[in-house]
Amino acid sequence: MKQSQLFTKTRKEAPADEVSKNAEFLTRAGYIYKEMAGAYAYLPLGICVLEKIKQIIREEMNAVGGQELIMTSLQRKELWENTDRWSDENVDVWFKSKLKNGTEVGFGWSHEEPISEMMKNYISSYKDLPAYVYQFQTKMRNELRAKSGILRGREFVMKDLYSYSLDAEQHEKFYQGVIDAYMRVFERVGLGDDTFVTFASGGAFTQFSHEFQTITDAGEDVIYINRDKKIAINNEVLSDKVLQDLGVTRDELEEVKTAEVGNIFNFGTKKSEQMNLYITDENGEKKYVHLGSYGIGVTRLMGVIVERFADEKGLVWPESVAPFQIHLVSLCSEEADVKKADELYETLTKQGKEVLYDDRIGVRAGEKFADSDLIGIPLRVIISPKTLAQDSVEIKKRNESEAKIIAIDELLK
Amino acid sequence: MKQSQLFTKTRKEAPADEVSKNAEFLTRAGYIYKEMAGAYAYLPLGICVLEKIKQIIREEMNAVGGQELIMTSLQRKELWENTDRWSDENVDVWFKSKLKNGTEVGFGWSHEEPISEMMKNYISSYKDLPAYVYQFQTKMRNELRAKSGILRGREFVMKDLYSYSLDAEQHEKFYQGVIDAYMRVFERVGLGDDTFVTFASGGAFTQFSHEFQTITDAGEDVIYINRDKKIAINNEVLSDKVLQDLGVTRDELEEVKTAEVGNIFNFGTKKSEQMNLYITDENGEKKYVHLGSYGIGVTRLMGVIVERFADEKGLVWPESVAPFQIHLVSLCSEEADVKKADELYETLTKQGKEVLYDDRIGVRAGEKFADSDLIGIPLRVIISPKTLAQDSVEIKKRNESEAKIIAIDELLK
Repeated sequence: MKQSQLFTKTRKEAPADEVSKNAEFLTRAGYIYKEMAGAYAYLPLGICVLEKIKQIIREEMNAVGGQELIMTSLQRKELWENTDRWSDENVDVWFKSKLKNGTEVGFGWSHEEPISEMMKNYISSYKDLPAYVYQFQTKMRNELRAKSGILRGREFVMKDLYSYSLDAEQHEKFYQGVIDAYMRVFERVGLGDDTFVTFASGGAFTQFSHEFQTITDAGEDVIYINRDKKIAINNEVLSDKVLQDLGVTRDELEEVKTAEVGNIFNFGTKKSEQMNLYITDENGEKKYVHLGSYGIGVTRLMGVIVERFADEKGLVWPESVAPFQIHLVSLCSEEADVKKADELYETLTKQGKEVLYDDRIGVRAGEKFADSDLIGIPLRVIISPKTLAQDSVEIKKRNESEAKIIAIDELLK
Repeated sequence: MKQSQLFTKTRKEAPADEVSKNAEFLTRAGYIYKEMAGAYAYLPLGICVLEKIKQIIREEMNAVGGQELIMTSLQRKELWENTDRWSDENVDVWFKSKLKNGTEVGFGWSHEEPISEMMKNYISSYKDLPAYVYQFQTKMRNELRAKSGILRGREFVMKDLYSYSLDAEQHEKFYQGVIDAYMRVFERVGLGDDTFVTFASGGAFTQFSHEFQTITDAGEDVIYINRDKKIAINNEVLSDKVLQDLGVTRDELEEVKTAEVGNIFNFGTKKSEQMNLYITDENGEKKYVHLGSYGIGVTRLMGVIVERFADEKGLVWPESVAPFQIHLVSLCSEEADVKKADELYETLTKQGKEVLYDDRIGVRAGEKFADSDLIGIPLRVIISPKTLAQDSVEIKKRNESEAKIIAIDELLK
């Protein structure tokens, strides 16, 4: 894409009302726009990153047998009353409104209830299990405060997967498979080393549930980790008993600030019992279905990636989620040179490379470099009268300081 | 995809509360699920069709210079008060709710206001124009009644594009370009012959606005068309004067029922004046920006395609939007035959074909054929002990009645 045509522009100043690094840089670089606290629009560069993250998650969810669908945001009151999750006392993040005829409706903040209700149409025999479904849904949560940029939103994108299993064993096997799939996701987006499967309190059915926590100062959580043993425990379950079970001592643990990027939860048969979701087994007997739910905050994940890699100059994207692979920065102004720069852009694009081409005329070199650092594309390629004199370009990785001159022919290989 | 693994199942009976053909067939075939009147979930087959339609629209919007973004559903009251579109008297489709601190918010039913407000950050000079942005947004509209399936929803997907132009001339040129791009979209999804650019009332700035109307008995509109001259006029503007201007007589017009699949609208500088969106021109003078908005109802378009092509047996998808290209229906049950059917599926998939593979064992042939007709994939390929005896398959197009036997080798070519 030609930068001269990109309608967004970079800004030097951070918006006065943003305190988080992710919102500051993403806004300054033109990735996001704040509609209100906790609700951000995603502009062309932002939507590129978001789609890349979604595609990575989609591939991993498909690989474990997930089938994609998309539920509605509008929610029926009755459905959530059945499971005692409609009242504002029990769930304090509902946005609610009314149909013209006065019927109360809510806007989805989670989707266990509607998806399970829908599944009743398709699950009746043991032969119908297991079934795994997921969606990328824009969740609405009426948070009291929203001040961490895209880390905690009133409107945000979440991937939520739901598993329907015949028994505890079938459930457990899939549950373990999702843990692995989630770690592959975090690995692929560049957060593998900093993300820990964290023991958290398990509720009524299991000793533990699992959170996926990524180390970042911007996080709201505190967990205790042992990097060598790759063990992490959250505050709620930190006890001598648990430490003993996990084979780690308090001294071996390090306290770190983290953001929760994913969580997985075992509902056992509780929700199925509330909702009357059951199958008939081989012996003709009625059995309630085991339900698991598995979330990844997609927009939050984007924010955590920013927090993890950004430096004082701006964003630094891992290749797998960068909006473009190459930032081709032209310092050419003479017609013949501009033509050569244009040709290089065309050739790279035809090769299937994703290129943002800074073709702007009349913008100082220093400003172009500052913009390039702010936007944070992994590889910067400078083409200028000086490099062209040697049929070369200057290349530099965003996360390295060393630049080098290479022949254009070499770049194209 | 293997049909044995698809969690949805077909149903013989139409849901009692659905009166429209699109909702009936899409529900029975497992494409959609009704959460409440006017709000449907899109299941795996449904999401495939939706994404194909979106991709066609995306390509055409990119081709005219559109840049994709995604705004928020949450809307600020102040913004819409400025243009007098907040009150329920002026706009009767708002869903509204409240933040925890009591601040009223709305859920977006259209996005001229927030996008134009956002554009103020990026448009200040004549050099910044033109700019074209679009999104695929889930719109919320609190409709009094919603009974046409996915043709009219309370929650539905819309593509909305907004153009920001320097003057009437620049606006007009783009506006004409969008008319052509829209017709390419309707052509590509199979509705070209049935879709008419229709003269409608133009508001304050132009004699006409333009609607895109597709002939269908399920539609809510009535228009007057001349097929030879490809002229269409809606009710509001049908007058002797207009007929004369367009060079057509009343006798030459045919009255048809239609559904509006797209509309384009010229706001002139009215909204920019209300919102204070202006640029500085070459002479340093302040000029208000010309705004156009251009919508395509994406889910509605899917519904109209169903209404247009479905027959008494079920859905009939045009190739361009079908969830799969080939429905491979296996009637094999012996191990050696099943293996050959599996191999054919693998080979077709490896060739990049999109195949739904009915690998279900123990389902009668008649039931499989009925399901195949209901699901409506363009090409049905039957593999059975009988066809395998001749190393063949039986192929039949969904919209033709003639089947023929061809060698497997030929199919693979």
